[in-house]
Amino acid sequence: MITEELLKGMMKSQNPGWKTAITKVEHNHLSTRGYSQEDLIENYSFPEMVYLLLQGKIPSEKQKKMFEAVLVSFCDHGVTPPSTQSARLMASAGSSVNACIAGGILAFGKNHAGAIEISMKMLQRGIQLQKNYGKSTDEIKDEVLTYFENGNMKVPGFGHRYHKKDPRAAKLIEVAKKLDCFNEHCELAMNIENSLYNEKGIKMNIDGANSAILSDMGFDWKMGCGIFIIGRVPGLLAHVNEEMALEKPFRKVFDMNGL
Amino acid sequence: MITEELLKGMMKSQNPGWKTAITKVEHNHLSTRGYSQEDLIENYSFPEMVYLLLQGKIPSEKQKKMFEAVLVSFCDHGVTPPSTQSARLMASAGSSVNACIAGGILAFGKNHAGAIEISMKMLQRGIQLQKNYGKSTDEIKDEVLTYFENGNMKVPGFGHRYHKKDPRAAKLIEVAKKLDCFNEHCELAMNIENSLYNEKGIKMNIDGANSAILSDMGFDWKMGCGIFIIGRVPGLLAHVNEEMALEKPFRKVFDMNGL
Amino acid sequence: MITEELLKGMMKSQNPGWKTAITKVEHNHLSTRGYSQEDLIENYSFPEMVYLLLQGKIPSEKQKKMFEAVLVSFCDHGVTPPSTQSARLMASAGSSVNACIAGGILAFGKNHAGAIEISMKMLQRGIQLQKNYGKSTDEIKDEVLTYFENGNMKVPGFGHRYHKKDPRAAKLIEVAKKLDCFNEHCELAMNIENSLYNEKGIKMNIDGANSAILSDMGFDWKMGCGIFIIGRVPGLLAHVNEEMALEKPFRKVFDMNGL
Amino acid sequence: MITEELLKGMMKSQNPGWKTAITKVEHNHLSTRGYSQEDLIENYSFPEMVYLLLQGKIPSEKQKKMFEAVLVSFCDHGVTPPSTQSARLMASAGSSVNACIAGGILAFGKNHAGAIEISMKMLQRGIQLQKNYGKSTDEIKDEVLTYFENGNMKVPGFGHRYHKKDPRAAKLIEVAKKLDCFNEHCELAMNIENSLYNEKGIKMNIDGANSAILSDMGFDWKMGCGIFIIGRVPGLLAHVNEEMALEKPFRKVFDMNGL
Repeated sequence: MITEELLKGMMKSQNPGWKTAITKVEHNHLSTRGYSQEDLIENYSFPEMVYLLLQGKIPSEKQKKMFEAVLVSFCDHGVTPPSTQSARLMASAGSSVNACIAGGILAFGKNHAGAIEISMKMLQRGIQLQKNYGKSTDEIKDEVLTYFENGNMKVPGFGHRYHKKDPRAAKLIEVAKKLDCFNEHCELAMNIENSLYNEKGIKMNIDGANSAILSDMGFDWKMGCGIFIIGRVPGLLAHVNEEMALEKPFRKVFDMNGL
Repeated sequence: MITEELLKGMMKSQNPGWKTAITKVEHNHLSTRGYSQEDLIENYSFPEMVYLLLQGKIPSEKQKKMFEAVLVSFCDHGVTPPSTQSARLMASAGSSVNACIAGGILAFGKNHAGAIEISMKMLQRGIQLQKNYGKSTDEIKDEVLTYFENGNMKVPGFGHRYHKKDPRAAKLIEVAKKLDCFNEHCELAMNIENSLYNEKGIKMNIDGANSAILSDMGFDWKMGCGIFIIGRVPGLLAHVNEEMALEKPFRKVFDMNGL
Repeated sequence: MITEELLKGMMKSQNPGWKTAITKVEHNHLSTRGYSQEDLIENYSFPEMVYLLLQGKIPSEKQKKMFEAVLVSFCDHGVTPPSTQSARLMASAGSSVNACIAGGILAFGKNHAGAIEISMKMLQRGIQLQKNYGKSTDEIKDEVLTYFENGNMKVPGFGHRYHKKDPRAAKLIEVAKKLDCFNEHCELAMNIENSLYNEKGIKMNIDGANSAILSDMGFDWKMGCGIFIIGRVPGLLAHVNEEMALEKPFRKVFDMNGL
Repeated sequence: MITEELLKGMMKSQNPGWKTAITKVEHNHLSTRGYSQEDLIENYSFPEMVYLLLQGKIPSEKQKKMFEAVLVSFCDHGVTPPSTQSARLMASAGSSVNACIAGGILAFGKNHAGAIEISMKMLQRGIQLQKNYGKSTDEIKDEVLTYFENGNMKVPGFGHRYHKKDPRAAKLIEVAKKLDCFNEHCELAMNIENSLYNEKGIKMNIDGANSAILSDMGFDWKMGCGIFIIGRVPGLLAHVNEEMALEKPFRKVFDMNGL
């Protein structure tokens, strides 16, 4: 006989997939991580909302300010990044705004925005090692540098294609100190910078600073590129809008040897 | 003979494309819309930065709070939207975080996030007509409703697949009033809601409320979908992260008739 | 009481969405448009398979050859298109192959690959008008030209940024004649070319030729951009592969005024 | 003084990026890998063109037929794959055809289409080891199986979510034998299947068969996902078109617990 229980069991197996702990959708009601969305709209800032979505709780006042500074710092780097160039090329070709922004995000590969995750992973593993084996920050720093040197790789989060001294990195570290968000990961990053600067004249870049700060705020390295995207999408939108409003459609951005 | 002038002319034609008024990139210095990025990182909130990028100026304190509420309201609607489902399907298939978020954004078509632009366009044209021809809000409202009725189309920004009464819309309008951001476009939208509710029991949804508010804040309708994206990307990231962390890779989200 | 009928009704409403007439998936068996995939793999060419997917039937031998020529003609235009440039920028930034190809496709906006749909729509509406009102090809041609002239728009499918005479267009028309695929839409397109060439020196481009040929083969204009994509994806893959194999990662493709 | 040499040097540094060996673009002339595109359009099949783009040469008659069968086999698997579901969700949301296809491709992650690259890499490394160390196919097979067993991973290219016996795999291997495209990589793959089938009842799937065949045809494993994309895009287009033509816009594909 078909009981109600059996029925529910069957129904459940029919719709196994879509469940979530992020936002509960009910008729005429929405709540995210336990907060009603009406409350969130009225009483919380955007960085608090983002932090709540990603970490499951509201940040402290200082954490909020720090997270805000991180997002602001990611906002734009003019027309130099491949992501911005791609988004503008798409806008020029007549694609829709959402296609252009999606396209820009697709250029956030491992050599571009992806670098921040590799940098976060490096710092988080370093601190993990430090804790597990009681090593000093200096020892960890040496191991990190040796690892990348042996692999003939750049240290992720250090050096910049356009700046000897990335102006955003120093400011972010300064803000982190002021807001008590400068902890072990920041210390390790500063330690690495000291060595790299003394030996090769290489300074920390924005990815390095934000990697350290986000790690000290408890973000898993797998969130790095996503947080960069949250910060950079407004810049992409501004560029797409500028291209559409001011430039000739389907223009030749580059001269092709006279073609 | 090759003169310097000729040379400069030739150089210019070689690199015609990449120019921008958004962010100036110089060695060790970045400035956006005239503000040094170090200043912006230290002293401005994220919504102020976004507003600066899109409107070219810093918003007033009340505008900032309003813009913040708009962005918060867009953040998440659980697993129901096609954008969120697409992003999670991609995460389950093993795509990278940036590919998943880009994929989610590609589902913001004209029936989904795109609706906000159609709604903004409707309100902005309505107010334009009002100004040009001295019509009353009521007359404009009637014209709008007739237009969509004749075309057998839903009025964009009104009605919701999951809510009789979208809880976010009422709250946003309430906040707009409190922050003096409730002006002519909001008034027209409320007028439309009154008629639709009396005749068909249909209420304003989040797109309708934000369309009106953003229009009253001076945003061109072509920005609508882009601003939605800025607000929703954090929600997409949270879902992608949840899928990757908690669900079995490449799972069958739907039962396919027993297959 | 829970009857079997009620149960089936509930089950059905649980999984309303995914149905298709394209491919039937059963345990250990797949059939597309009625053909077993084993048969298709063994006995049919790729263009036949594509034609079957899109039109629901196997093409004649001549149609197959014509469709093949259309796909070949779309394959590549070097590094000049924004789609190819976007895909290479993404490859340089370290994105995965599928992200790069998706990104390239996102640049197929209405000014680029999208033009083919506008061109097909123009030709198909023209022929429709001709049939409905008994007008001559010349009359239709005049109406088309007047329409675009009045709107101060380029006629879609005619003229090219890099070629006075697109070498692919003439060859495609020649092949269409040889394969009996030159019919009313091709005739209208040739008629338009004659006028544009006599008056302004403008020739048909690849989009114009393929628009006419695909229309004569019975493809709806909404398929135009999709068929272009099928043809161009191999070219995008070749470029992504070349960028990854031969160029320095995250290179500066353009000199930014000395930066 | 400005010499011609100096001038050329400056010009070169202004346009360092866009060069390619794939297609040469000249005024009114296009040639790909040395063949004029007019010749290619008139005299070559689409799979020959694709092979030329990717391998730099025209395939033999048997290779052409084999490559054709590979592309046909990738074409469609109904509504079950996350890529097809994503593309249809986007179409339902009102996105453009190119955005929907790009979105589908973004679901080709490492658990879906990406599996073919891991499978090709496994087979190509296996054969490399065999050559370098003179090991037998059986020894290599044992090493491969041990590697994946130790890592508690599925062997890529074997087993299928919907089929005990993927009908496409056996047919592809049969065709490969008939066309003399069954060589060392196919042999290794068959060897692995024998063991997996005897021990666990697991058979080769389409990715396994095509991995082996493409490897025997000389394709680098980094091409795997790209070739899958070339084959699958027509299926995605057919689904996007079906969704747009036959389904209600912005429909609820899944019942959300009664919402």
